Amino acid sequence: MKIALAQAKKAAAEDEVPVGAVVVKEGKILAKAHNLKEKKGMATRHAEIVAIERAAKKTGNWWLENCDIFVTLEPCAMCAGAMINSRIRKLYFGAWDPKYGCCGSIYDLPADKRFNHNFETEGGVMQAECAAELTQYFKRKRN
Amino acid sequence: MKIALAQAKKAAAEDEVPVGAVVVKEGKILAKAHNLKEKKGMATRHAEIVAIERAAKKTGNWWLENCDIFVTLEPCAMCAGAMINSRIRKLYFGAWDPKYGCCGSIYDLPADKRFNHNFETEGGVMQAECAAELTQYFKRKRN
Repeated sequence: MKIALAQAKKAAAEDEVPVGAVVVKEGKILAKAHNLKEKKGMATRHAEIVAIERAAKKTGNWWLENCDIFVTLEPCAMCAGAMINSRIRKLYFGAWDPKYGCCGSIYDLPADKRFNHNFETEGGVMQAECAAELTQYFKRKRN
Repeated sequence: MKIALAQAKKAAAEDEVPVGAVVVKEGKILAKAHNLKEKKGMATRHAEIVAIERAAKKTGNWWLENCDIFVTLEPCAMCAGAMINSRIRKLYFGAWDPKYGCCGSIYDLPADKRFNHNFETEGGVMQAECAAELTQYFKRKRN
């Protein structure tokens, strides 16, 4: 999560909402990414999607077998869906997102047995640091 | 929807699950795409995501203002989420997906007032043709 947080700081430095993500397989980092929405001009370029695509490119397989993902903020519907689609094994996230979070807050998509894949989630990992990064960013933007 | 269906046929010819998508703005086609999951080796390369990204690239803005999307199959959680994130105005889809569809079937994400954007959906447009394309594909795969 420390590495994901460093990615979030990178996003903040580029005036993006500070979210970072890291995909790990068997203790090794496969891919890391930060939010690129504004830079790329695409609402789909959340840190999680970019990290998942980089990991898939590296392994040469869309099925991210035995891969875990660390994200500094609770994933939205799009990103939770991308994790289901790519068969993520476990999600660790930092700050909870009570407004748009779909991994326990407004929905819990990874736990929905109707999908063909489910995965465990652990929220609140380095919660204070991950949340502070976001709070500082939005405070700066308002000023 | 006819153009989206032609995209789905293109996917089938490339041995991809036949789904096609078209983004339209003020009566003009901004982008079209077919499912590229196997070809790209990425679970995120659904037709809708590819079409949304091509449309954003074309307009130079992640906010797809006044844009409608036509898809041959009811979108999954990831794609419905991407439509919310990119502020799609209206979604038209062909076949219903009772197993994974998140635009009326197992969830109705576009209608959930808790999100910061909602949009209208119209399912069952050219339903028979869109569903037949999928049925034929899976039948061929089984044989």
